Amino acid sequence: MADQALFAPPGPAAEVEEGGAFTPKFDADGLVTCVATDAGTGEVLMVAHMDAQALAQTIATGEAWYFSLSRRKLWRKGESSGHVQKIVEMRTDSDQDAVWIKVEQVGPGACHTGRRSCFYRTIPLNGAAGARLEFRDAEKLFDPAAVYDTGKRGA
Amino acid sequence: MADQALFAPPGPAAEVEEGGAFTPKFDADGLVTCVATDAGTGEVLMVAHMDAQALAQTIATGEAWYFSLSRRKLWRKGESSGHVQKIVEMRTDSDQDAVWIKVEQVGPGACHTGRRSCFYRTIPLNGAAGARLEFRDAEKLFDPAAVYDTGKRGA
Repeated sequence: MADQALFAPPGPAAEVEEGGAFTPKFDADGLVTCVATDAGTGEVLMVAHMDAQALAQTIATGEAWYFSLSRRKLWRKGESSGHVQKIVEMRTDSDQDAVWIKVEQVGPGACHTGRRSCFYRTIPLNGAAGARLEFRDAEKLFDPAAVYDTGKRGA
Repeated sequence: MADQALFAPPGPAAEVEEGGAFTPKFDADGLVTCVATDAGTGEVLMVAHMDAQALAQTIATGEAWYFSLSRRKLWRKGESSGHVQKIVEMRTDSDQDAVWIKVEQVGPGACHTGRRSCFYRTIPLNGAAGARLEFRDAEKLFDPAAVYDTGKRGA
């Protein structure tokens, strides 16, 4: 994982919650959670992770960089597909273990399956845990096989 | 952590991504990530975690239940504050390690600091990692001390 010394370590809770210093609280794997929403529609496009280096690159460039859990490496969103995410606004939450980026999604979609959003299935409520998922907004807008050279996930 | 046998285990990637079975992929701590957005505005209210029991309770009741990392227990959102979250729609993502709930937030806010959203500070972009956070939409809408009996976080 990347050098967490890129950021100051978190102080007491009152400082973390009410202060002006960005002191991300990395988990045991050195990661924070990132939620990317479409800056125009508010739709959640994807949830992924950032290590310290991905956070620093994101802040420095204004484009989304992640840490890929499956490939165990720093990952510039769109590096294979060209589907980069230009950040309109970036926020952190009260305990600073998550960030929210509002993005302009370049290209047809954010999801490696070819869809606009990774959240293309609903979970039926008020029933049993085993109910079937329902596809929604699930149209494939691009052909993953044509976009990714090696079938990399989520790039 | 709760009984993961409440849900079937994930199958091959093609089934997880393109199938109709909800087979959540729990992390090493038995958790999935949950993003709660305001069903009306699209604003991200909070990011938290659900274990299998919280997921099952959420699905059964149509209200948000989480697993509190700080208290290490199942947590019905609003159990102390009354600020429950009624779910309008629940989705899962391509690899089923995250869920997105669109909610009607009952009461003035979702954040234990007294704000509407936990994401009340922006991170300046295109600069150094050490730039100061800027408060935005950060008005305190309720007094946490009056709402929580024991200063519990995020309830």
